[in-house]
Amino acid sequence: MVTEDFALKMPESVDLAAATPLLCAGITTYSPLRRFGAGPGTKIAVVGLGGLGHMAVKLAHALGAEVTVLSQSLKKRDDGLRLGADHYYATSDPETFEQLAGTFDLIINTVSARLDLDAYLSLLTVEGALVNVGAPAEPMSLNVFSLLTSGRTFAGSMIGGLPETQEMLDFCDVQRIGSEIELIPAQKINDAYERILASDVRYRFVIDVSTMA
Amino acid sequence: MVTEDFALKMPESVDLAAATPLLCAGITTYSPLRRFGAGPGTKIAVVGLGGLGHMAVKLAHALGAEVTVLSQSLKKRDDGLRLGADHYYATSDPETFEQLAGTFDLIINTVSARLDLDAYLSLLTVEGALVNVGAPAEPMSLNVFSLLTSGRTFAGSMIGGLPETQEMLDFCDVQRIGSEIELIPAQKINDAYERILASDVRYRFVIDVSTMA
Repeated sequence: MVTEDFALKMPESVDLAAATPLLCAGITTYSPLRRFGAGPGTKIAVVGLGGLGHMAVKLAHALGAEVTVLSQSLKKRDDGLRLGADHYYATSDPETFEQLAGTFDLIINTVSARLDLDAYLSLLTVEGALVNVGAPAEPMSLNVFSLLTSGRTFAGSMIGGLPETQEMLDFCDVQRIGSEIELIPAQKINDAYERILASDVRYRFVIDVSTMA
Repeated sequence: MVTEDFALKMPESVDLAAATPLLCAGITTYSPLRRFGAGPGTKIAVVGLGGLGHMAVKLAHALGAEVTVLSQSLKKRDDGLRLGADHYYATSDPETFEQLAGTFDLIINTVSARLDLDAYLSLLTVEGALVNVGAPAEPMSLNVFSLLTSGRTFAGSMIGGLPETQEMLDFCDVQRIGSEIELIPAQKINDAYERILASDVRYRFVIDVSTMA
């Protein structure tokens, strides 16, 4: 039993299994997109196209922003464009950083590995924000001048509160947005775990709990 | 000669020499105070009580915020309270960081030395911002979890544009705010330089250019 204060209404227009990751990857990316003003006329970059990144792309696109994926390679380019990205660049290509200098109002970084923060901050426009939803275990270093000269911001964001989660679910209902998932029975959990370690999932595993009997 | 696009109207209620540093230390601290919402009901900390810090205290107080100075020692405590601070703490005392955890909406860091950023970020409330106006030469390191868990922000700010500079001058005119200065003749520049290196200035030297003949 749960009191209505802690219950959420799931979107009716989306398959329940595909809607499940909205409660984690969905709200984690929706919250900073809203807080930092993603919408028509804004340019948003999403770093990394994984479980969090693919939701950031779908949501930023549905909010009306111009969306760019910054990924290690161009391997998932077709997916990225299909999910709503307008542009797709490889960060392994140094020209990417020259070409996109001063471009973005907001960068959502979904990668948990250490990054060259100064390089990513240089892609922001005046008063732009780089928001980490990835959680690197080790401290990261940055040059304060990367923030000073254009009044830039480095922020962090984690999940979101219940009212904003319901707002996100309602938005996904109207926009018919779910996560890209692979539904697995409980018996496949160990396989799925190995595949996650190998980054072999597009883009979230969902476990069918009816198979756990 | 200067076109009116690049001219500013100085405050009439403030001595011109005392108003001079408003064009640097004034706008440098006013801009982030305004951008991050300093006003009645907000709690602002100012790190360092020097040329920038003493202006941040005066302006934050005049904007209606509750102002705390965080300084290495309590040496300038009387000055800080006289300039408008409500509270004054020594950062050399480790209890300061325990006592003030989660307190501030905004921290203006005027210090150019390297700081323990994670310790200062822990003093912010949910969605609070630490803004550097000091410019450390070396990279600084932080733990991304300091930002993630409470949606905190680390930002930089430098000077301000002409319209905001005029807004600040007009605000200082109404509030009769100038800088605390020591007016020196050109012949004393070398002495003043040595005293700046020794942090022996309260709080800005202004050179009387009529003595430069």
